[in-house]
Amino acid sequence: MTFENNFVNWVHATMPTTAKALLPNGDDAALLSSSPRGTLVATDMLLDGTHFVVGQTPPELIGRKSVAVNFSDIAAMGGTPDSIFISLAVPHSTCPKWLERVMNGAAEMAREFNCGIDGGDTNSWNGPFAINVCVVGRPHWRGPASRLGAKEKDVVMVSGRRLGDTLASEHHLNFTPRIKEAQWLLDHFEIHSMMDLSDGLASDAPRLAKASAVKIVLEVEKIIPSPWDAKDLRSALCDGEDFELLFTCSHANAVEIEHNFPWSCGIRRIGTVEKGEGVYLLHPKQTEAQLLDLHGYEH
Amino acid sequence: MTFENNFVNWVHATMPTTAKALLPNGDDAALLSSSPRGTLVATDMLLDGTHFVVGQTPPELIGRKSVAVNFSDIAAMGGTPDSIFISLAVPHSTCPKWLERVMNGAAEMAREFNCGIDGGDTNSWNGPFAINVCVVGRPHWRGPASRLGAKEKDVVMVSGRRLGDTLASEHHLNFTPRIKEAQWLLDHFEIHSMMDLSDGLASDAPRLAKASAVKIVLEVEKIIPSPWDAKDLRSALCDGEDFELLFTCSHANAVEIEHNFPWSCGIRRIGTVEKGEGVYLLHPKQTEAQLLDLHGYEH
Repeated sequence: MTFENNFVNWVHATMPTTAKALLPNGDDAALLSSSPRGTLVATDMLLDGTHFVVGQTPPELIGRKSVAVNFSDIAAMGGTPDSIFISLAVPHSTCPKWLERVMNGAAEMAREFNCGIDGGDTNSWNGPFAINVCVVGRPHWRGPASRLGAKEKDVVMVSGRRLGDTLASEHHLNFTPRIKEAQWLLDHFEIHSMMDLSDGLASDAPRLAKASAVKIVLEVEKIIPSPWDAKDLRSALCDGEDFELLFTCSHANAVEIEHNFPWSCGIRRIGTVEKGEGVYLLHPKQTEAQLLDLHGYEH
Repeated sequence: MTFENNFVNWVHATMPTTAKALLPNGDDAALLSSSPRGTLVATDMLLDGTHFVVGQTPPELIGRKSVAVNFSDIAAMGGTPDSIFISLAVPHSTCPKWLERVMNGAAEMAREFNCGIDGGDTNSWNGPFAINVCVVGRPHWRGPASRLGAKEKDVVMVSGRRLGDTLASEHHLNFTPRIKEAQWLLDHFEIHSMMDLSDGLASDAPRLAKASAVKIVLEVEKIIPSPWDAKDLRSALCDGEDFELLFTCSHANAVEIEHNFPWSCGIRRIGTVEKGEGVYLLHPKQTEAQLLDLHGYEH
């Protein structure tokens, strides 16, 4: 009890709050000013042993990642994050300083995008460390991007220079959510469909295809740089936690986007949308694309 | 992966959604229509062994409680809940049917207040079962109730016929959040300050006193029905999880409220607000109130 009270007092004294918060932190619920365009809500729970390893992962990166994966969801809608709510399940043995370092990592990511940490819940228990983040934001003035609008003859594009190898490179811990990049895309172009890559292209592309009721054909040589082997391809398709934008738009817009994209992460075409269903892979020197068999690539 | 996918498909097919949701379930974030009066957000994480016991607590009651504690926070602000987001940390050994029963309990509570389950996150792990609920709602047309406005000479009131004994009576699992009661209060009266009793009167009343910068004097004989012993008093003050409304208003309004309160849970005066700070207890036949020493009552 005392531990929770002290921690909550530290949070109230230390963490950034947003201008959207209309009441001081510490009431039963937060009151946020709302956008007439609606309210975006994303939530993700991150767990010790699954998304990070307590004792190996620096606590700041645990906090940072917990916020960033939710920002990536808001980015996937083309939205702007405003307010962050953090719930913690804390093992009894946890050092308060370690927990403060987790929160400092969350606060750093929050400040980078002018967000506040406007509420939460802290409990200690006998289980491992778990953190749930809920982010509230607002959609783009054009309305939200969604998974639903991919059209026949669209080009499939992805942000970033590479997919896969996210664990060894620690990309999954220190990636920057593509909020600014997504907003730039929606500012200037009609983006027919968009999502973020969290489970890997082999899992996520089929979701986009299904939601939009279209067939997607991905070109292997555009997905990964040459030279590559089967292991590299599996990594690019299945590692997950890329947190890049996957989206579709017209061919004309794709050319413009490639030409004018002003962000350092890069952007590129990796496939096309056709009439039909499912996701197909076109291998080099083949003329006919093969149905992407997720299980064939799973670890 | 297959377990999560199957479960998510079951959720999308089964769970209620709200008219506030502007996109079908299953995108990266939910888009909700927003109220011009602002957006209320509450979040609570409930843990196996702390807030319920897997194997002893019926799973429906775990789901019900997880939503209800958040509804109680929205009630404390006088607000209306709209949308529910549920994150789950699920032990690998969990039977899918058990998890569906948890969700059915959550859905039942959601439907009772016309809410939808509009998003969430599911992960399996080696730890115990944990559930985080985030509720998004809107404030009362008068604006939000808060902990900040208690005034000298206010009367302190509480909903419900008794405090304490919440564990043995299973009240902590099957209570009804005081959403309608709180709205009725704000509809008809100027409520100066309000919160819900989640940690027990001995912990929560000092928070209200501190937030409003006032002294609160509670009368023991109004808190618990006679005859009572020291154990009963400790239970009423410290058991926690009452999830009743604690609020203050003018004396004239308190009389009107007691006289006209139309809800079966009952409502009553338990104390007064004075100039000063801290929470004091007035024992029967004593003329001077004693400073409430929380530690003296802790288990």
